Amino acid sequence: MILLAHCPDSTGLVAKISNFFASDNLNILKLEEHTERGQFFIRIQSTTPKNISDFSKRFKKLSEEIDMQFSVYSEQEKTKVVLFCSATLPTPLEIILGEISESLPIEIVHIISNHETIKPIAEKFNINFSYVSSEENNLHEQEHIKILENIDYDVICLARYMKIISDDFLQKISNPIINIHHSFLPSFIGGRPYEMAFERGVKLIGATSHFVTKDLDEGPIIAQDVFHIGHGLSLQDMKKEGANIEKKVFSEAIKKFSEHKIIEWKGRTIVFG
Amino acid sequence: MILLAHCPDSTGLVAKISNFFASDNLNILKLEEHTERGQFFIRIQSTTPKNISDFSKRFKKLSEEIDMQFSVYSEQEKTKVVLFCSATLPTPLEIILGEISESLPIEIVHIISNHETIKPIAEKFNINFSYVSSEENNLHEQEHIKILENIDYDVICLARYMKIISDDFLQKISNPIINIHHSFLPSFIGGRPYEMAFERGVKLIGATSHFVTKDLDEGPIIAQDVFHIGHGLSLQDMKKEGANIEKKVFSEAIKKFSEHKIIEWKGRTIVFG
Amino acid sequence: MILLAHCPDSTGLVAKISNFFASDNLNILKLEEHTERGQFFIRIQSTTPKNISDFSKRFKKLSEEIDMQFSVYSEQEKTKVVLFCSATLPTPLEIILGEISESLPIEIVHIISNHETIKPIAEKFNINFSYVSSEENNLHEQEHIKILENIDYDVICLARYMKIISDDFLQKISNPIINIHHSFLPSFIGGRPYEMAFERGVKLIGATSHFVTKDLDEGPIIAQDVFHIGHGLSLQDMKKEGANIEKKVFSEAIKKFSEHKIIEWKGRTIVFG
Amino acid sequence: MILLAHCPDSTGLVAKISNFFASDNLNILKLEEHTERGQFFIRIQSTTPKNISDFSKRFKKLSEEIDMQFSVYSEQEKTKVVLFCSATLPTPLEIILGEISESLPIEIVHIISNHETIKPIAEKFNINFSYVSSEENNLHEQEHIKILENIDYDVICLARYMKIISDDFLQKISNPIINIHHSFLPSFIGGRPYEMAFERGVKLIGATSHFVTKDLDEGPIIAQDVFHIGHGLSLQDMKKEGANIEKKVFSEAIKKFSEHKIIEWKGRTIVFG
Repeated sequence: MILLAHCPDSTGLVAKISNFFASDNLNILKLEEHTERGQFFIRIQSTTPKNISDFSKRFKKLSEEIDMQFSVYSEQEKTKVVLFCSATLPTPLEIILGEISESLPIEIVHIISNHETIKPIAEKFNINFSYVSSEENNLHEQEHIKILENIDYDVICLARYMKIISDDFLQKISNPIINIHHSFLPSFIGGRPYEMAFERGVKLIGATSHFVTKDLDEGPIIAQDVFHIGHGLSLQDMKKEGANIEKKVFSEAIKKFSEHKIIEWKGRTIVFG
Repeated sequence: MILLAHCPDSTGLVAKISNFFASDNLNILKLEEHTERGQFFIRIQSTTPKNISDFSKRFKKLSEEIDMQFSVYSEQEKTKVVLFCSATLPTPLEIILGEISESLPIEIVHIISNHETIKPIAEKFNINFSYVSSEENNLHEQEHIKILENIDYDVICLARYMKIISDDFLQKISNPIINIHHSFLPSFIGGRPYEMAFERGVKLIGATSHFVTKDLDEGPIIAQDVFHIGHGLSLQDMKKEGANIEKKVFSEAIKKFSEHKIIEWKGRTIVFG
Repeated sequence: MILLAHCPDSTGLVAKISNFFASDNLNILKLEEHTERGQFFIRIQSTTPKNISDFSKRFKKLSEEIDMQFSVYSEQEKTKVVLFCSATLPTPLEIILGEISESLPIEIVHIISNHETIKPIAEKFNINFSYVSSEENNLHEQEHIKILENIDYDVICLARYMKIISDDFLQKISNPIINIHHSFLPSFIGGRPYEMAFERGVKLIGATSHFVTKDLDEGPIIAQDVFHIGHGLSLQDMKKEGANIEKKVFSEAIKKFSEHKIIEWKGRTIVFG
Repeated sequence: MILLAHCPDSTGLVAKISNFFASDNLNILKLEEHTERGQFFIRIQSTTPKNISDFSKRFKKLSEEIDMQFSVYSEQEKTKVVLFCSATLPTPLEIILGEISESLPIEIVHIISNHETIKPIAEKFNINFSYVSSEENNLHEQEHIKILENIDYDVICLARYMKIISDDFLQKISNPIINIHHSFLPSFIGGRPYEMAFERGVKLIGATSHFVTKDLDEGPIIAQDVFHIGHGLSLQDMKKEGANIEKKVFSEAIKKFSEHKIIEWKGRTIVFG
């Protein structure tokens, strides 16, 4: 079982929480905690109680005493992912392979794309697929919402989905949305980061995965990485190399999310190890 | 205050230890734990009690109940280092600069070298220095032991000291000894690792810092890193680049040690973050 | 067009070769050269002559004068790959996706496996597939040779193919064979590298791609990479993380080969940038 | 001898230049070239002619034919550096040690600082030192210019010199100026990059070394690198870690410059390998 929680910091919190686990006869296998700006964050991986929802109900009492927000997860249940994608293939394929090879503890329950070319890929891997044309801008989001209302899912992952998400959509969707941006944010915000990077003559190119909020490319960052580029790389080469780092960073973010290691707090993320 | 401890694993250990801290009104600032092969390892960084040695005495009772070995450290006290070096300059200089720039929480209390050329460097930085000729092999270690008997120190760091340490010396010295080996162990054990790496045509060159035990280059590894090499690098270039990675890895190992983050157990190290 | 060549070093070689290109009115787009142990190595990427095989015939005269071995390649022609695999999926899938997403300039012409489970994957991607049971050790290699005799291919890539290649097979196959070994060679040779790495307590885990020669895991190294591991990683975690670095290193080696950037010489490789 | 040159691209350039070397009986040890936006760039490392300035005069004729700008350098002559620094110690010390340990082929001919605390360091290493108070803003640059007029030097290196360089100063100084900025440019321009990075919650912190031009932190980038940060790092930790990456990147840039590997062209740099 995984417990992910945070509350205002005070002396004795670890004692209170670990006593609760001990009195339930649960062995703590891994405990990570962090304190930042007066807030206490904790992730505990323990042996599994007979009944997780029963544990959760009893833990709620303690949590209320210490003003704590918490979630508990069974390690047996996979995180249910909806993939949004456009025509770009490598990034969604990476996530699909992550599921197949079990390097990601996820189940892709649906793919939504504004390109019909993705359909045969979804079919190859037996994943439900919906094509939604994005030409009439506002209407396609209404279709998305209709589809999502009928799906049981935990997170939306934008695998190089090139359409901007509207505030209206964000307000109607309560589950988190993870995006991959093909630059080292906050450098090169927007749709042409490689061109901007080439022009500026940088020696590193990056990718950033972040939660989506209403400000474009400004959401809490989950994972980032870079690769070195020399003068020899053309813009075309940079894009190809960039695709590799994007895939890697996006996978890493989805892995952390599906392992219940991320707490989002006031515009930043705590990402446990 | 830092507590570093380990004991056989059982349910309720975190609760017992954190209760002790809470009852002493100490706030846990950072807690890391790890379980491996039936053993439980923990490092706690907390607010400082009025009297650390008094805390230690009281904690001893708990530790005996759970068969725990522990040490407590004040964060105010710097780790006292004795540097052994030969003619090679960059590695000892890196550690000296680490002290000066306060990137390493250490105090170099003595330098021992079999090369007189190190003396002016030691003098420049006002560090006690002893020259011990290493020509007559057994006698020089007797001199080392005499010098060390009169110094208050925590750890010996072999900063590219090119003489083999005898079993006899190891038995007489109870403090730990940290070495830097200029290869990615267990590859290329011995004195000519770059030559062996060049011959084998490897594409990465590394460095390894480890505790010294009686088996040459076989002690518990603390830190390792590598750098990529292409065909263009001559043996001479590799040695120059290697010096950089050696310095970095050695510094990292000494930093972890002086921040009380390392537990050595059965031939491996637990190195907290 | 790509020219890849080497010969004994002497003054004026670059002039002779570049004069030949200039007199053919070919613009040199990229030139890389290297000298090592008395041998001169060169790779030239140039504009394409009307007739490459005609160019090759005329260049042969120059090459004989300077005792040069050379090959010329059209950048339009993809490298034809035969994949050997066992039950492990991620590594072969990475190479298949490399072809689909065009990050690798290859065409996988055949997959040979000793596991029937690979068949549906091959079918999904419309790749010819042969199942060859490996139970009777010597006979399966005879089957491999029969299959290979009927295929037009450039290179065999062992994508986590867990059977040892015999000397006899190597003598009958004139095309190069690229392997991926799941450790940082020369550390941890053999079939259980992660177990050995865990036991030794190393802080880095690696992967090595190399040409296959008759000595197990001793062939010329093409690419290597590592990732950092802490004490927190179990053996199982290490294997999962290792799979990622294996895929990356194997892809990189195949990319370099298919871009005609590798010259093998006396047990080492020159890998151009 | 090193030749560093560039000119408009055309067919036959490599032939013309390598013929010149061959006719002078100079063996080309290493040749690197690059073409970008219609311009051809080349660096040749060759055996040394009897008289370099004589070679240079004769090569000038060829260069004029092909509209080439070029410089030739003897590998025996070290690059003469003037260090500007403020109170921060690690960065200038890294460069000083680079000279002492011969990992940088430079000679530091003078240190200029607006902090008297640097003086004893300069004296320890027998380097000429000038203290110039920076309180009256315009006057201190006049003093700098006076000092520089009396020194034979190749490059000014700003080793964490925290004063802005005026346009007026730049116009009067014809030698290049290399700066180290403590962020991954173009992110976090200005004087408080770590604070900005912490606020934004980035997962990587970087450093950038660049030539100084009249636009603050906008000059051509020479080298960049980053390190991963987790949520556990305080702002203070980030600054300490940052100091290490700054030193490394600044050293790398000065190394490339002093090995005559950098060509600056239209706001970007070509940095040979």
